[in-house]
Amino acid sequence: MNTEDLLNQIAFIKEIDKVKYIQRKTKLFNSDRNENDAEHSWHLALMTIVLAEHSNEPIDVLKVVKMVLIHDIVEIDSGDVFIYDSEKNHCNTDEERLAANRIFGLLPKNQAEELIAIWEEFEAGETNEAKFAKAMDRLEPLLQNTSNNGGTWKEFDVKYDKVYEKKSVIKEGSEIVWNYAESLINESVAKGILKK
Amino acid sequence: MNTEDLLNQIAFIKEIDKVKYIQRKTKLFNSDRNENDAEHSWHLALMTIVLAEHSNEPIDVLKVVKMVLIHDIVEIDSGDVFIYDSEKNHCNTDEERLAANRIFGLLPKNQAEELIAIWEEFEAGETNEAKFAKAMDRLEPLLQNTSNNGGTWKEFDVKYDKVYEKKSVIKEGSEIVWNYAESLINESVAKGILKK
Repeated sequence: MNTEDLLNQIAFIKEIDKVKYIQRKTKLFNSDRNENDAEHSWHLALMTIVLAEHSNEPIDVLKVVKMVLIHDIVEIDSGDVFIYDSEKNHCNTDEERLAANRIFGLLPKNQAEELIAIWEEFEAGETNEAKFAKAMDRLEPLLQNTSNNGGTWKEFDVKYDKVYEKKSVIKEGSEIVWNYAESLINESVAKGILKK
Repeated sequence: MNTEDLLNQIAFIKEIDKVKYIQRKTKLFNSDRNENDAEHSWHLALMTIVLAEHSNEPIDVLKVVKMVLIHDIVEIDSGDVFIYDSEKNHCNTDEERLAANRIFGLLPKNQAEELIAIWEEFEAGETNEAKFAKAMDRLEPLLQNTSNNGGTWKEFDVKYDKVYEKKSVIKEGSEIVWNYAESLINESVAKGILKK
């Protein structure tokens, strides 16, 4: 065992504390308190554990859990991008890649490479694990907005078509979860908390 | 697939949002902002992933991650107990067991049984996985207090002997991490932020 490796791991553990300060647009359930990235990531990890059985394809649950635990760490440097922001393209910008290299780069080389690869895999969204992780990432704010009388949809005037398009990604991870999500979207329209 | 199972899983996912409101005594790194249980659990999960290689014995990393993600969920009903509180015995009180049965009991039966068993295993602290999870749970506030000029040790007048006793549990999970933790405790005494 290399003492330098442990010290580098501790440096990473201290650095990621900053994730707790990154505010998301979405609010907690039945609440007007914004969620932060650490709380969000914790919730996605438990959603993954509880809902993994509904994945369309067999998945490596530990890998998905790693993905959702780390997926927002780059925002320490690049900031949170609202999913309905049409100005900024969220996916894997140069700024985010630089952030990944800097932050995961605090770790010993083999771990840095593993976590950067897992983050890239999540962003690319092509593997079964990434598809399921993205499904969880889309589901949580849907549950939050429906519990908050429209939440960010109302606050930022986001319409049905846009929501339906963004949320339909859930289907690629889990048809079963998507059927439920689609019914929530339709209910929201019927209740008038999501406008067509 | 049973639709009722998914609805029960969603009920659990909504219920555990309350973990984000449970304030711990410890503060974030270099901060005077209290940490909440969801942030704490997220941090322990990533510490587990990054430090697992230092475990004394081979461990099932996914199981340890599940343990640390769920270990404080019972506090939704029973509240946070400060580790240096000598009045209350934290370990597996009747109140906590009732909480576990109620909250995990929202899930389909097989999942409820699995997570209650994992929570009980953590509390008992006897398996390799539980020992490593407990090591992570002891390490995070040590890192926080040393970054906060003594933090809760100063605030609640906790002395070296008590800290050393509580933290030495880390050794059962990882001798390597314990060597580092012990050096931090000794440094804290030398700096005067922990009193003998």
